[in-house]
Amino acid sequence: MTDAASLADRVREGELRFHELEAHADADVATEARRILVTEQSGASLDAVGNYGFPADVADSAIENMIGAIQVPMGVVGPVSIDGGAISGDTYLPLATTEGALLASVNRGCSVIDSAGGATARVLKSGMTRAPVFRVADVAEAEALVEWTRNNFEALKDAAEETTNHGELLDVTPYVVGNSVYLRFRYDTKDAMGMNMATIATGAACEVVEAETTASLVALSGNLCTDKKPAAINAVEGRGRSVTADVLIPREVVEERLHTTPEAISELNTRKNLIGSAKAGSFGFNAHVANVVAAMFLATGQDEAQVVEGSNAITTADVQDGDLYVSVSLASLEVGTVGGGTKLPTQSEGLDIIGVRGGGDPAGSNADALAECIAVGALAGELSLLSALASRHLASAHAEHGR
Amino acid sequence: MTDAASLADRVREGELRFHELEAHADADVATEARRILVTEQSGASLDAVGNYGFPADVADSAIENMIGAIQVPMGVVGPVSIDGGAISGDTYLPLATTEGALLASVNRGCSVIDSAGGATARVLKSGMTRAPVFRVADVAEAEALVEWTRNNFEALKDAAEETTNHGELLDVTPYVVGNSVYLRFRYDTKDAMGMNMATIATGAACEVVEAETTASLVALSGNLCTDKKPAAINAVEGRGRSVTADVLIPREVVEERLHTTPEAISELNTRKNLIGSAKAGSFGFNAHVANVVAAMFLATGQDEAQVVEGSNAITTADVQDGDLYVSVSLASLEVGTVGGGTKLPTQSEGLDIIGVRGGGDPAGSNADALAECIAVGALAGELSLLSALASRHLASAHAEHGR
Amino acid sequence: MTDAASLADRVREGELRFHELEAHADADVATEARRILVTEQSGASLDAVGNYGFPADVADSAIENMIGAIQVPMGVVGPVSIDGGAISGDTYLPLATTEGALLASVNRGCSVIDSAGGATARVLKSGMTRAPVFRVADVAEAEALVEWTRNNFEALKDAAEETTNHGELLDVTPYVVGNSVYLRFRYDTKDAMGMNMATIATGAACEVVEAETTASLVALSGNLCTDKKPAAINAVEGRGRSVTADVLIPREVVEERLHTTPEAISELNTRKNLIGSAKAGSFGFNAHVANVVAAMFLATGQDEAQVVEGSNAITTADVQDGDLYVSVSLASLEVGTVGGGTKLPTQSEGLDIIGVRGGGDPAGSNADALAECIAVGALAGELSLLSALASRHLASAHAEHGR
Amino acid sequence: MTDAASLADRVREGELRFHELEAHADADVATEARRILVTEQSGASLDAVGNYGFPADVADSAIENMIGAIQVPMGVVGPVSIDGGAISGDTYLPLATTEGALLASVNRGCSVIDSAGGATARVLKSGMTRAPVFRVADVAEAEALVEWTRNNFEALKDAAEETTNHGELLDVTPYVVGNSVYLRFRYDTKDAMGMNMATIATGAACEVVEAETTASLVALSGNLCTDKKPAAINAVEGRGRSVTADVLIPREVVEERLHTTPEAISELNTRKNLIGSAKAGSFGFNAHVANVVAAMFLATGQDEAQVVEGSNAITTADVQDGDLYVSVSLASLEVGTVGGGTKLPTQSEGLDIIGVRGGGDPAGSNADALAECIAVGALAGELSLLSALASRHLASAHAEHGR
Repeated sequence: MTDAASLADRVREGELRFHELEAHADADVATEARRILVTEQSGASLDAVGNYGFPADVADSAIENMIGAIQVPMGVVGPVSIDGGAISGDTYLPLATTEGALLASVNRGCSVIDSAGGATARVLKSGMTRAPVFRVADVAEAEALVEWTRNNFEALKDAAEETTNHGELLDVTPYVVGNSVYLRFRYDTKDAMGMNMATIATGAACEVVEAETTASLVALSGNLCTDKKPAAINAVEGRGRSVTADVLIPREVVEERLHTTPEAISELNTRKNLIGSAKAGSFGFNAHVANVVAAMFLATGQDEAQVVEGSNAITTADVQDGDLYVSVSLASLEVGTVGGGTKLPTQSEGLDIIGVRGGGDPAGSNADALAECIAVGALAGELSLLSALASRHLASAHAEHGR
Repeated sequence: MTDAASLADRVREGELRFHELEAHADADVATEARRILVTEQSGASLDAVGNYGFPADVADSAIENMIGAIQVPMGVVGPVSIDGGAISGDTYLPLATTEGALLASVNRGCSVIDSAGGATARVLKSGMTRAPVFRVADVAEAEALVEWTRNNFEALKDAAEETTNHGELLDVTPYVVGNSVYLRFRYDTKDAMGMNMATIATGAACEVVEAETTASLVALSGNLCTDKKPAAINAVEGRGRSVTADVLIPREVVEERLHTTPEAISELNTRKNLIGSAKAGSFGFNAHVANVVAAMFLATGQDEAQVVEGSNAITTADVQDGDLYVSVSLASLEVGTVGGGTKLPTQSEGLDIIGVRGGGDPAGSNADALAECIAVGALAGELSLLSALASRHLASAHAEHGR
Repeated sequence: MTDAASLADRVREGELRFHELEAHADADVATEARRILVTEQSGASLDAVGNYGFPADVADSAIENMIGAIQVPMGVVGPVSIDGGAISGDTYLPLATTEGALLASVNRGCSVIDSAGGATARVLKSGMTRAPVFRVADVAEAEALVEWTRNNFEALKDAAEETTNHGELLDVTPYVVGNSVYLRFRYDTKDAMGMNMATIATGAACEVVEAETTASLVALSGNLCTDKKPAAINAVEGRGRSVTADVLIPREVVEERLHTTPEAISELNTRKNLIGSAKAGSFGFNAHVANVVAAMFLATGQDEAQVVEGSNAITTADVQDGDLYVSVSLASLEVGTVGGGTKLPTQSEGLDIIGVRGGGDPAGSNADALAECIAVGALAGELSLLSALASRHLASAHAEHGR
Repeated sequence: MTDAASLADRVREGELRFHELEAHADADVATEARRILVTEQSGASLDAVGNYGFPADVADSAIENMIGAIQVPMGVVGPVSIDGGAISGDTYLPLATTEGALLASVNRGCSVIDSAGGATARVLKSGMTRAPVFRVADVAEAEALVEWTRNNFEALKDAAEETTNHGELLDVTPYVVGNSVYLRFRYDTKDAMGMNMATIATGAACEVVEAETTASLVALSGNLCTDKKPAAINAVEGRGRSVTADVLIPREVVEERLHTTPEAISELNTRKNLIGSAKAGSFGFNAHVANVVAAMFLATGQDEAQVVEGSNAITTADVQDGDLYVSVSLASLEVGTVGGGTKLPTQSEGLDIIGVRGGGDPAGSNADALAECIAVGALAGELSLLSALASRHLASAHAEHGR
């Protein structure tokens, strides 16, 4: 039987490689052995990291070279009343963060939304994309490839869908720059975030392109997808779920609960979120949508790097007959309730709080519901921060909560 | 003595409010009471979430309405040799993620960097910003405010710095749009990420502006900061640390270890990261820098929502005398080694692995070192993914690691 | 009979208004009367402006309050050999400009292209857009409008096409931000640039939307068109013609004629047009495409304000087997050969030089040909400036030509 | 004595080259000979183009291969009352365009501005930029170059200013991407637009950089300038003149003259110019500023390709105590009153209409005044179009004016 100390010894002696330990020992022993070695090299105690609450092999498809787990405090806001396309009723929203005052702020927003009768939310567009780049000889060949693609959608669809049980290829859009041709494949990936599904399916379709045309694949991703980078193509056309939430708040609620006026919030939103963002050359016309996206992503096992696209959001605030209308529209929210980090124990429980763990019925409805919940959380966050700023309380709010 | 069940009872009966429980019980009991209530409402078991490894009151400045903690698997890559401005030598890099294959990929990059003699990294610009927006009567008053700001920098600096022991106001840049005037304050915040410090200091300076001029503060943040939104102002001018890492890899290493050629990687980088990103209207001319930023942010207690700005990175790859030169330049990496999430137990240990927990000597050097490490991690990730794509292995790599 | 002096008198006396003179006198007399009045007020002699070479009433649909004409020197470059989708053979390209050295530079580029056997050019996408914005009650109504639009394309198409003899509605794409819904109508406008046609047709379609749904039209243009503003939506999706031109230049031609190497031009293009533009947060990854677009627009009666969209271009330069491949891809070139400024005498002659005055056969082919010619002109300009920079001759070239 | 026919003969026979004719004949004869040759090749009659109203040698520094001139109808709007930093009083504004209805629209705006007591305008920032790109070995050398640049500003300034009588180097800002270093030189170029002056001066400074450091100049322009491309760096930081104009219009004027309300215009501006542009991923948050910029540029001899940067403008519209406040802020308006096209006869007269031909006193004040006039013209255009849209008159206005 192998223990961690002897496993670490064998690494030191060059018998085993640091990343191969799971092949020679139980996964938890392997992580312990790595902690020994990392502590040795760095001097870091790793007791807290090693004190994780799940069998290490649960994470074997989520990480390599595991040494333990990071723990991030998790809380809830709400319950908040949501009238969504895929979810209805009152629900707590889970957030994991280290940003003091964030949950207090979002919670205040939820409470005000509830006083106004709840928020409305809808997923308005949906589709996960992958855009390989091909090299052609010249612009004449580029034209031929564009034409071929338009005429052979069914062949691409057949090849792509053969690799997946759930995914459906929705469309393929060509973009040409000189002798580089980008084909943006867009899929319905149901309850999966779908990046991996889209990658594999597109890989199969690319083989058809290469077999049938003169084009040569340069990279399975040509950055017109666009994954994990701020990009106008996502802000304009969407990626994952394009989801909007809104609420109409009676004037008296704004005045009594938020200590400001619809007019003050609307002016502030215009000068800060619209004009300020315009002057900054931004794709994010909001106050802090990314805070809620990041925290709810963490609490529900989403991909934290996709917070980037999650921040492509526009917040609006108008006065309507004396009341306050507020909305937030997230162009490219990439979420799933199956696969990836959603399988881990704490993250599964995060999904359970909303009631969206696993595949939905119909397929895709759980991920839609999650997207609508995040949009409502973001709406609550915007509402609360905008009114705090309108009352000039930002700095003191932070000070109070000790961040 | 209060137990969780009776605390939950009192909430149900309306005696206590959900977010006030810490005032009536031990913090861990309060989180337990909330779990009871959330389970009741949602049906979610919260055993895993409740199985956190630190006293709940440790997190009291990091979260409100706490119910437990999320656990994210953590691993290390390296050790990798770094020649930085603030760190030198071999170091493991900690990453926490649920993205299968990520650490394997970054680790391969680190290994190749090491074979090439290590990476060079430098912080080239530094400063945390906050940009309040003021309303003035008209453009003539805007001109007067711009003039006043230029002439009264010392007064603003005095007011701002009175609120902080460490921060220094570096400059104030005015931007005018009609009757909105934005003043972008930039601070040296040493080893703190500094957003809160900058907010408080700027609040004090704003009082001077309001006292001495006709301008009226609309919001302490006018979105020209820009915090947690994708924005050109950060990509162009930087925010937090602007840090670059590079490496020159001998051709034989590229060929033998990465199974491709410098020419193939350079072409792929041009068509994907440069031209593809250009066509996408992107601020991120890289392959997946956000993956490494998000994972190292999580492992070291940074603000996950700032992954947004962390993705403003440009990757270059050229052939130099037959060898491969690769660089990655992150324009706006916002990191700290004190405050915020860095104080939590697992995150502190993450910083210890690199040796940068707490304040550095000189002040700021720990945060600089952390920025340089993240840049090298990102460089390793870029190098590895680009070469995997060049070898057309992206989909199969993911399949193998089971994501 | 009215002469200009008495007409001017009547304006001074308040009998006639400055902009109504054409109703009371011959158009040329009216312009003379205005010159008298403007000279009086400003002291400016307007002899040159008054010395225009066409009857003023020829311009009556092009301008109001006319006082004469501006004269801009016009020249030609070429002839250059073009293999296009809509034009083939050798053609002179007309340019009007006051930028010294521009024609010399483009001419050099044309000559080198010719030495390489000519350029290839293709229009790869085509469509003029107009995007009205509607107000709806909330996101639920927004969802309903999006759904309605998808189901009622034929009704919109019928209404739109009733207003035009030539235009065809290609598609309508909805975008939602809170309670604002933008419908981007895209038309095939044949040989017309088509902005006015698209506006009128969309106006008719909007009446159907308002009649059949709860939506209320806020503005016939909601800026998602996007006309005459730099916008990612045009750079990504195109507007007007998306056209690419390229050429493969033998190494010896580069060396002998351009006094540099394919490698030097490729490196320069990467560092300047790709990486430099990336760092600048640009939608224009080229050297000076706008120069050629502006000058050819002026020479052929296009809308000078649309030079803005014409600058959304990406230039690439690679070494292929030792030779130099250069391409330029203009995403949103808005051109026409009928209507607008194309009807004026000098502009008509500009079109005649290329052989594309008036409607083409088939319809649209003249505007396609013009787009391809501008793309080749831009390619020549890029090639020449890049090689001049590679030879460090930029400043001295300007100095020599005395600009 | 040479006549055009025999000159053309000599070109046909290969004795002379098409672009060298001015060396062998009077400039007007040379243009005539070219017309003969172009007509022969293309079949185009060039009578109108040949009927230009100035001696061809006047244009010898403005164009090469001249065949004549294009004529664009020119008109005036106003007079409009301006309270500027460099101009005060009532002035006509000259515009040259072929866009029917444009002058009528801008004129209506001017008239309303006048009814409101005139517009205020200010140049708030000024500076022409040129940004060469250098290659260094690696990031360590990049850091050294940045440091060197900061320490050697005086040496760069001396070298740069030696090349110019008027220009002053204001600052040099370094940007680093991998082993590419961009130095953005910013100059006060007084009444000249200054691009050429900045290029020559920067060329001289680059020689110092190359002599004193290890850096190697790749290109005198590295696209961070940014000239004639849409770029965030200009929209954020400005280039040429950053100029704002505004006006407060009494409610009754809005209602009686514009047949709409302040509230309607403000809502329309928010949904179209702010939110619509945000969703489009735009750098131009305005309705049609480029129309006025293009037309006034043409009328006053500016560089038409710089309309691109001129369109980086933000329009705001708020209700203030029941009245309408409208502003337009142009971030990067590049204008001059000396040099380039300003020297041509009709263009000089255009400048005379405003009273800004040639150098101002103090130096720079004429170009400032021109910038302020264009901003006011743009303001009038925005006001008029927004109110037309608010009254749903856009299509019919165009139809009426026959474009």
